Amino acid sequence: MGAVKTKRMPRAVREQQMLDAAVRTFGQRGYTAASMDEIAELAGVSKPLVYLYLNSKEDLFTACIRREATALTEAVRAGARPGLPADRQLWSGLTAFFTHTARHPDGWAVLHLQARTHGEVFAAEVAVMRAEIVAFVTQLILAAARDAHRDPDLPEREVSGLAEALVGAAESLADWANATPGVTARQSAATLMNFAWAGLGDLMAGRRWIPPDDSGPDTGATGAQTGRTSPVT
Amino acid sequence: MGAVKTKRMPRAVREQQMLDAAVRTFGQRGYTAASMDEIAELAGVSKPLVYLYLNSKEDLFTACIRREATALTEAVRAGARPGLPADRQLWSGLTAFFTHTARHPDGWAVLHLQARTHGEVFAAEVAVMRAEIVAFVTQLILAAARDAHRDPDLPEREVSGLAEALVGAAESLADWANATPGVTARQSAATLMNFAWAGLGDLMAGRRWIPPDDSGPDTGATGAQTGRTSPVT
Repeated sequence: MGAVKTKRMPRAVREQQMLDAAVRTFGQRGYTAASMDEIAELAGVSKPLVYLYLNSKEDLFTACIRREATALTEAVRAGARPGLPADRQLWSGLTAFFTHTARHPDGWAVLHLQARTHGEVFAAEVAVMRAEIVAFVTQLILAAARDAHRDPDLPEREVSGLAEALVGAAESLADWANATPGVTARQSAATLMNFAWAGLGDLMAGRRWIPPDDSGPDTGATGAQTGRTSPVT
Repeated sequence: MGAVKTKRMPRAVREQQMLDAAVRTFGQRGYTAASMDEIAELAGVSKPLVYLYLNSKEDLFTACIRREATALTEAVRAGARPGLPADRQLWSGLTAFFTHTARHPDGWAVLHLQARTHGEVFAAEVAVMRAEIVAFVTQLILAAARDAHRDPDLPEREVSGLAEALVGAAESLADWANATPGVTARQSAATLMNFAWAGLGDLMAGRRWIPPDDSGPDTGATGAQTGRTSPVT
């Protein structure tokens, strides 16, 4: 009876089962150590069927990356709620991100560890997703700055840098949270808000941290004492 | 005359020249595309001599990773000045980091891009350095928190998370700064201070960002309104 059921299953469903098994195996064992035998067994299908549907280990891995990247990007987009104040938007976006990475640790390992570790082709797949998320975060920060000041005090280039910093911090924290027992998505998001929001929040309010004059090898541009002060561009 | 000079050069000097050439080639062309011919030519030595001294492309790459990792770690340690207030320590550490990555873009590309992209063995080399930097930053944040409050309000686990976030943000920003013409080390460090310091600074002062009650899928622990308030643990 199981066999009959198996045969009737549509290809799309079968493929998702193969991808589920592949993401779990790649995420837990690593790309190199993962075997197609193991993936087929976990998916409950024959190895030739995996090859028939997904062609090769490389193509199967690429399909995993794309599926997991799409799911993560959609989760983050769905989490950011445009109607809310900036800190609430950031909080809900971060919570969505950490909830997704905590619920799909193998998917996150595929995206952030495995895909980057096994060659430029896979790394390029992930880079596309990352660029999309950075662009999305950049727009959120710009919109928040525009709401806060009428004319944007923050040069667009600095906003790009802030978005890179935020995304890098979130990635690093997701790795750490998934490797540290008992850290919830909510705690990770709160840690990052504690780290980042007051900083961004002060920026939105036009208060900057002023570099000291006497340190740093570059020629300094600003000349106030260290601390937070009112608008400096 | 050049040939005589060449022959008399001590092995240690020769090896550094080979590593200089290798870091530049790996950083600019990528590990896969880089050829030993090219590296030997750039170093001004024969290819057999490169193999004699450094054994294989893999070993040469590993030697590059170790040298660049040591240099970066030392630059960051030298930059953090224990006598200064916490924000100045962070500023000087970040400035040292971004100055080093800006001056050695090929070394940074080897560490943060190439070493991670070409297999688990190389990635593990970099992971050792990263863990060391995270541990160092964790100690700095703990020390700053201890100075700020007598009894540490920040649980050590949250401090680890903050250190991960800071390191991840700095890595991401260094990639971006090296890819964006005209961004100075001082600007990158100031962007990250603007992003991070006021957040960490508020934490040091015992003010936290309080998550809202009604969002986030985990069961919430805190119950105040969104914003910054006095000590919450």
